[in-house]
Amino acid sequence: MAGGDENATTPDHPEPSGVTVGDLGERALISLFTSAATTATSGDIVVGSGDDAAVFDAGGPTVISTDTAVQNRHFRFEWSTPRQIGERAVIQSATDIAAMGARTVGVVVSIACPVSTPAATLTEINDGILAATHRLGGRVLGGDLVAADEVVLTVTSVGALDGLTPVALTGAQVGDVLAVSGPLGSAAAGLAVLLAADGCDEDGERSAERSHRLRAQHAEVVDSHRLPNPDLSAGVVAARAGAHAMTDVSDGLVEELKTLAAASNVALAVDVSRVPRTEATRRAAAELGESDDIWALTGGEDHQLLAAFAAADVPLGWVVIGDVRERTGDRAPVSLDGIATSDLRGWQSFGHQ
Amino acid sequence: MAGGDENATTPDHPEPSGVTVGDLGERALISLFTSAATTATSGDIVVGSGDDAAVFDAGGPTVISTDTAVQNRHFRFEWSTPRQIGERAVIQSATDIAAMGARTVGVVVSIACPVSTPAATLTEINDGILAATHRLGGRVLGGDLVAADEVVLTVTSVGALDGLTPVALTGAQVGDVLAVSGPLGSAAAGLAVLLAADGCDEDGERSAERSHRLRAQHAEVVDSHRLPNPDLSAGVVAARAGAHAMTDVSDGLVEELKTLAAASNVALAVDVSRVPRTEATRRAAAELGESDDIWALTGGEDHQLLAAFAAADVPLGWVVIGDVRERTGDRAPVSLDGIATSDLRGWQSFGHQ
Repeated sequence: MAGGDENATTPDHPEPSGVTVGDLGERALISLFTSAATTATSGDIVVGSGDDAAVFDAGGPTVISTDTAVQNRHFRFEWSTPRQIGERAVIQSATDIAAMGARTVGVVVSIACPVSTPAATLTEINDGILAATHRLGGRVLGGDLVAADEVVLTVTSVGALDGLTPVALTGAQVGDVLAVSGPLGSAAAGLAVLLAADGCDEDGERSAERSHRLRAQHAEVVDSHRLPNPDLSAGVVAARAGAHAMTDVSDGLVEELKTLAAASNVALAVDVSRVPRTEATRRAAAELGESDDIWALTGGEDHQLLAAFAAADVPLGWVVIGDVRERTGDRAPVSLDGIATSDLRGWQSFGHQ
Repeated sequence: MAGGDENATTPDHPEPSGVTVGDLGERALISLFTSAATTATSGDIVVGSGDDAAVFDAGGPTVISTDTAVQNRHFRFEWSTPRQIGERAVIQSATDIAAMGARTVGVVVSIACPVSTPAATLTEINDGILAATHRLGGRVLGGDLVAADEVVLTVTSVGALDGLTPVALTGAQVGDVLAVSGPLGSAAAGLAVLLAADGCDEDGERSAERSHRLRAQHAEVVDSHRLPNPDLSAGVVAARAGAHAMTDVSDGLVEELKTLAAASNVALAVDVSRVPRTEATRRAAAELGESDDIWALTGGEDHQLLAAFAAADVPLGWVVIGDVRERTGDRAPVSLDGIATSDLRGWQSFGHQ
């Protein structure tokens, strides 16, 4: 909105605790977020945060994607710190840039929140946005801050291809291998632990102990849920290696396989046991009596990448999980352990967990 | 969010009336919005809507800005059609691109809305987004669609400078003239008419007649509120003419003058009678007993531009309203009709109504 074009840029916390967004007002908060340090021209940034719009130079074709996270739907203040929420919003958006084979140059951020939101909460969200963006080598280019009934974060990321050809969804070729950039199911495992721990809390004091124990013993997956930490440079690595097709695994592997199969008009065969997952994910599954296969196949938000490569081109760090086959007639284009299936319900009903 | 990266691209309305967003689901709606026509590569667009991210080429430095509109705060479904709401969200964001002297190449759009939202409403918002973007010569590059408690629209616009130097806020020079790209106060007049008409409705049947008469007789300003229609090419024209500084008048002229004065470290003097407004705005003020001076000086959302030029460089279509002077000591940097003032309250108290 009007006046909100100079958002989100300094990690200072000068406001006294208890002060709300409404107390300070939009303009005061925006100038709090706008620091000389980050408005300085540097690298890809021609005009930084603080003017009507920012100007950057990707030195060629520019990749762009936008991603929105809504309070109590995509994040909970009870489960994550404001800083983690800000970081995760950036990672979520930047993953789409990586999935094209590009590096993130910058982000613009819109924050809608109730006027009763503590100013400190907003400052911490902003700190997280800055930290995650800087870790990716990008800059916060600007933003908007508006009043709303709930917190809604929209991060738009822009990226540079540095001469590489963008890796689309449509290029998977028969004979390619399928690979992922890292372990899957960790965030889903963490969510399951948090839900189980919350259930314990409700059952009284002794269960509260179990709740604490669950969170502590499974801190690794809980942290993965709160703040996935994929190595997004894997996208550039894959593009350099000549990946034929790529996407990010944000909706769960099976969903992304279906999307990739449809876009490239091929069939995809995955060996479930080869889908990488961490030891911590297996331990959480064992303790909760759940299936880490299901988490690895359907859990979203690990923000790893899925790509199709010629067999000889799979880069270091990528794990082969299957291959690309010819699509024949009405045969379901995605198969798991050789069982053709058009949706996970079907796959589940075929005897897997 | 995950899976929402293929938003907003076809004007078809195939869904039966009464169907909600929740009935159709995010994926179905997104594919409804993604048409072959607009995913085709053309012009600046390298990879269109439908992949993880879009790729465009601004042929040099890229301008970017993001802008959020929230239901019942920035728009009302009672006052505007869904199509107008979509169009206005694009204009609002693209105005920031124009204020740098750039042309809009494309937009990405995030729509958060309750699952109970009629699918037809969303389709109409999308139609408006498409129409406004295409009128500007841009393309809808992608988007996101998520569930939320209220409708929140975030439009991020990107623009190309085509070799021009971006026009920052900081360049106004002593001796420059100040000019605006078109009439101000129309949207504020329209809002005042709508509020007055709503007040009539509440007072019973006879007043309902007056309500209808007000809206009908002042349709021009009401339309300006619902859908401002600034000529955003005025920004490129100003940059070509060598404008020294520019911004958009989205928060009201006085606020923008203060911002410009601070950024350029100058004093600004405006002759209130020279600030252009339409005859329709004057008529609405006369009927409602309000001040069109106030509307023209403080009303936002006309989305005209304000710029500082060397006196000989003011382009056709721009209207001179004042000049740029040296800032002296603690003198308030903005003066209206020669009366120094640091805020409008001060100015009002100096006898202008």
